[in-house]
Amino acid sequence: MAGRAPAAIVFDTFGSVVDWRGSLIGELTAFGQARGIAADWTGLVDAWRAAYHPSMQQVRSGALPWTRLDDLHRASLDRLVAEFAVAGLTEADLRHINRGWHRLNPWPDAVPGLTRLKAKFIIGPLSNGNVSLLANMAKHAGLPWDMVFGSDLFGHYKPDPETYLGVARLLDLEPGQVMMAAAHNGDLAAARACGLMTAFFPRPDEYGPHQARDFKADQAWDVVAADIEDMAAQLGA
Amino acid sequence: MAGRAPAAIVFDTFGSVVDWRGSLIGELTAFGQARGIAADWTGLVDAWRAAYHPSMQQVRSGALPWTRLDDLHRASLDRLVAEFAVAGLTEADLRHINRGWHRLNPWPDAVPGLTRLKAKFIIGPLSNGNVSLLANMAKHAGLPWDMVFGSDLFGHYKPDPETYLGVARLLDLEPGQVMMAAAHNGDLAAARACGLMTAFFPRPDEYGPHQARDFKADQAWDVVAADIEDMAAQLGA
Repeated sequence: MAGRAPAAIVFDTFGSVVDWRGSLIGELTAFGQARGIAADWTGLVDAWRAAYHPSMQQVRSGALPWTRLDDLHRASLDRLVAEFAVAGLTEADLRHINRGWHRLNPWPDAVPGLTRLKAKFIIGPLSNGNVSLLANMAKHAGLPWDMVFGSDLFGHYKPDPETYLGVARLLDLEPGQVMMAAAHNGDLAAARACGLMTAFFPRPDEYGPHQARDFKADQAWDVVAADIEDMAAQLGA
Repeated sequence: MAGRAPAAIVFDTFGSVVDWRGSLIGELTAFGQARGIAADWTGLVDAWRAAYHPSMQQVRSGALPWTRLDDLHRASLDRLVAEFAVAGLTEADLRHINRGWHRLNPWPDAVPGLTRLKAKFIIGPLSNGNVSLLANMAKHAGLPWDMVFGSDLFGHYKPDPETYLGVARLLDLEPGQVMMAAAHNGDLAAARACGLMTAFFPRPDEYGPHQARDFKADQAWDVVAADIEDMAAQLGA
């Protein structure tokens, strides 16, 4: 930490704070059983997440105008429901399934760790999710954010610099007074390139058996922790 | 209420949730005593607030480009320090005094009432303050917001419709699913014109002996309450 302390800490959310894969597989499996709709729900969830970066890249490249993540998720879902031959879903079902991203569950250390950090720092998500998704998720999961930094505030997706620098601008802080916390080395590298402080903690089960990266810190981040509670301890919170 | 209930409630902040006049007079009087700087601090605070609407009107009219409230406050303060002949203030003092708007204290019912409402609704300030001012104020006063809607998110000051409709857009709600709560009838009239629900509670001491309006509800607002705790009770929270 070299004696510096941040004034605010922003968190990557999908995978870093909440368990998108376990949450969605659990919810969709229960939904399929309750409705008698058989499908490879696990495969569909993994394919849905695999569509995440390519769909945002269409916005980043300019092929699509600014589009909220909810709407990117829905376009991917419509395609995957056909590819996975899931039959019998109504429009209301599709809306409900798409809103599953608003109902993700936190990793066990997230709420206690964030609660400790909130006592000392301004905390918020800095996520590619839209504000409504993140606000609903916080209500569902009990995430004690001070402020929600959704990508729609900036009209940009991470790792575009407008997101990291936008947090500093809105909080009237220098980039070096803001810490980006994530389980993804790539997110932290982009934040560091903008001058932010960085904190890493691994989520080795984020992608289940398909996890291929981010088992450990790739760089000497300002904080390297076991999880968010350990991060709070290292920051004296 | 006619059977409707909001999904989110946003609050006017200065005067409605926090006591700007009592807070600033108390802080500046103590500051003057500690520093041995004699001045009509009460008069300065009243004049500072009197400059609030005219300064925003310069932005609304286009005479000034978008300017954050912190910067409008500072320009007014610089003028008033000269008018009130306050001597001996350093640049650091002026910055500290200007940040007094980040350190306002809540009315006694605000934190308990908001805490109850937060359990049932998404809550946030919808204020002419900038995000950093409101986030720092929430930390200082213990205001349990889910999301901070500062005017800098919209590049507009209330009562411009972009502010009320901007909340609905960011929360992915219809305007009629959002309730504006304030101690100011004018704010509610503008919100209602945009289709929002409305809640009024009076703050008859906001302007101290200079209070001239807003002693009671001017229209049949959806909720008319004694204070924020009574509002929570009326909304079943």
